[in-house]
Amino acid sequence: MQIPVVRNVLEANEKLAEQVRARLDPGRILALNLISSPGAGKTTLLERTLADLSGEFRMAVIEGDLQTDNDARRVAATGAQAVQINTEGGCHLNSSMILQALDNLDLDGLDILFIENVGNLVCPVEFDCGEDAKIALLSVAEGDDKPEKYPLLFNLARAMLLNKIDLLPHVDFDVRRARDFATRLNHDLAVFEVSCRNGQGLDGWYEWLRAMRQARRQGRLSRQER
Amino acid sequence: MQIPVVRNVLEANEKLAEQVRARLDPGRILALNLISSPGAGKTTLLERTLADLSGEFRMAVIEGDLQTDNDARRVAATGAQAVQINTEGGCHLNSSMILQALDNLDLDGLDILFIENVGNLVCPVEFDCGEDAKIALLSVAEGDDKPEKYPLLFNLARAMLLNKIDLLPHVDFDVRRARDFATRLNHDLAVFEVSCRNGQGLDGWYEWLRAMRQARRQGRLSRQER
Repeated sequence: MQIPVVRNVLEANEKLAEQVRARLDPGRILALNLISSPGAGKTTLLERTLADLSGEFRMAVIEGDLQTDNDARRVAATGAQAVQINTEGGCHLNSSMILQALDNLDLDGLDILFIENVGNLVCPVEFDCGEDAKIALLSVAEGDDKPEKYPLLFNLARAMLLNKIDLLPHVDFDVRRARDFATRLNHDLAVFEVSCRNGQGLDGWYEWLRAMRQARRQGRLSRQER
Repeated sequence: MQIPVVRNVLEANEKLAEQVRARLDPGRILALNLISSPGAGKTTLLERTLADLSGEFRMAVIEGDLQTDNDARRVAATGAQAVQINTEGGCHLNSSMILQALDNLDLDGLDILFIENVGNLVCPVEFDCGEDAKIALLSVAEGDDKPEKYPLLFNLARAMLLNKIDLLPHVDFDVRRARDFATRLNHDLAVFEVSCRNGQGLDGWYEWLRAMRQARRQGRLSRQER
């Protein structure tokens, strides 16, 4: 009995994701869905990105958490628009939640909408939030075996940020092993080695964001394959 | 429609969890359910524990992963019995899976059964696997805000291991903040600061395991409150 129910839930979500896209398409707003384990650095990445690119882009953030509005307050401190979704124990965001959050954002002139999903390497991957691309974060403290053990995210993401590379001297993490496995799953995956703590490597990520924004603006960005 | 379905699933799981307990009770086997984010160090903790206590206890491991049998092979290398469950994308173990795994374990004379759940700080918490206690692992690389943001696990666990304390000089993690929040949620929570990489702090964990094993043997261990 469980499988048909799950399928219905995913189909209903997909329909609402189309409504999200219909809201974002007129302004050609680039929507990016950030997915990772808890504590991989999504919020710190956003704090850096929002601060460093504030002169170039208008950006907004939808923050997903089980509880607390800590992360929305952190990103709002950069001056960006932020809306918090509390899932009250739910393990992922879905497009119904995104639609509600959009009602509380000023989309006029917006360039990039970041969706920070609930910290979870499994469930958020299945639920389309109407994004143009999923972004996978992996902290090097988590171990280089994670793309092999949680392949769906790395298969579907357009970019992977290997975060906390400042910790590389102190952990057993083979960057090549993680990169190789992820890019074998997904030949088109862009990979960035970064430290959101000290800013190392973020220039490459920013260049990629500019290119994605440009492609979205010019209508050259194909829908994320699912 | 979604909520009643989820409730039925949890009720069905609870009935099968009673069957797990019925299998473990005759031998008074202590069952511990290890839950954490991906990469917090569950498998490394087991490798250490199985090796260091092999002279004292007969131990077995049920390994839960979406894919691969990497972790079962790692713990089997210590000489312990190990059974791998692949959830094929599923985000948590349930007691039906545990029952099947028990068919492949020799329970005779077993002292401790470790269940290593799927790496996920949300979904596994809801599903009783017939364990005597849930054990929460939190790596200091994940951030000291995690007990506040994912409270259910820290509320229900009997012990929390703050792992990777060898990284403390290199990360922003306030041990007191994490401890205080978790123990405010849960006054009876035992907390151990450990490094499964270099072995630091594991003695306290081993003492706690001995006490739990003794309580189970003597029938003094109350059922985990849910």
